[in-house]
Amino acid sequence: MELYKQIPLYRFLALCNESGMEKTILDCGAGGDSPPLSLFSNYGYSTNGIEMNVEQIERANQFATERGQNLNIQQGDMRQLAISAESMSFVYSYNSIFHMRKQDVKKAINEMKRVLKPNGLLFVNFLTLKDFRVGDGVDLGDNQFEQMEDDELVIHSYYDYHEADSMFDDLQLIYKEDRVLERKFEGEWIRQGFIDYIYKK
Amino acid sequence: MELYKQIPLYRFLALCNESGMEKTILDCGAGGDSPPLSLFSNYGYSTNGIEMNVEQIERANQFATERGQNLNIQQGDMRQLAISAESMSFVYSYNSIFHMRKQDVKKAINEMKRVLKPNGLLFVNFLTLKDFRVGDGVDLGDNQFEQMEDDELVIHSYYDYHEADSMFDDLQLIYKEDRVLERKFEGEWIRQGFIDYIYKK
Repeated sequence: MELYKQIPLYRFLALCNESGMEKTILDCGAGGDSPPLSLFSNYGYSTNGIEMNVEQIERANQFATERGQNLNIQQGDMRQLAISAESMSFVYSYNSIFHMRKQDVKKAINEMKRVLKPNGLLFVNFLTLKDFRVGDGVDLGDNQFEQMEDDELVIHSYYDYHEADSMFDDLQLIYKEDRVLERKFEGEWIRQGFIDYIYKK
Repeated sequence: MELYKQIPLYRFLALCNESGMEKTILDCGAGGDSPPLSLFSNYGYSTNGIEMNVEQIERANQFATERGQNLNIQQGDMRQLAISAESMSFVYSYNSIFHMRKQDVKKAINEMKRVLKPNGLLFVNFLTLKDFRVGDGVDLGDNQFEQMEDDELVIHSYYDYHEADSMFDDLQLIYKEDRVLERKFEGEWIRQGFIDYIYKK
């Protein structure tokens, strides 16, 4: 079976499988050229995705079509999901939610929690203050920056170790991982910082 | 396909696949009730394992037999591998090498490097000083401790962020990840610290 580069989602997938809940899953920020919903589709999940950017939806659809999959990715805004409350067993947002200002991240988290079924599982990750790009670009305050990425100005919001915890006070923590990784990217060594959370509603 | 709990090895597997080298792999500390060599076997690898503890070999063999696999795990000492130089494309030790004193860890690393082919890939991980058990048990000096685990006294050696780097000065770093994770284990919250390395020879 094909391997996917979003390694932390393997842990989430294993927990989703173990939960025994109906296999319905939502990805917030689901587009791109290697959509992780494809991994969940391989494991029998009924997949749903929300993505703001039409080009990223097209890239994901091309990937899926080449594999005979339909990932069901809709254009939409994760701050305002056109999805019923408590309709998804599993919801995640991988390397995506921090491309908004913190006030918008909070709205998106509230939406993800709203559509999650009771006992459902949530995965979300954040950039941390240990990331090498903290401080670069246009300072929007509170560790939010507008930075160049692929020739576009995009927002990156960076979080302290405990900063995001309070958005999940109404959920039960299953797993929290603080990761700092060093790797070569386009010929340069980079240092990225992430916190991954898995919660149960 | 079955999922395995040793999540960081998915990244290593993906890199091994991408390398295009012959699929021969060695696991140092290969025993236990969920042997990750089984994952590599699922992806067509010719597997080899070394394990000190006979009971752990039996557990791994039972797991493999239930899946129609033969993982080829031999009893042996990773400080002195009965394996030819430059015979394995891929070598790893996952959550295992730190169960020795640091002087023995160095011997094992040297052996892993010896049996690795040129251009081959090495994965190894270490406990770090951020782990919640640093300081527990019998202090053997230099952040080495004898600690109770499953009613047995076992050694745990803990490393600072850069401490292990020098053992790999003759290899090329591909990936380094410093991880601190919080999870429930047997009803208690625990905080574990690991550094994962991937090197190319």
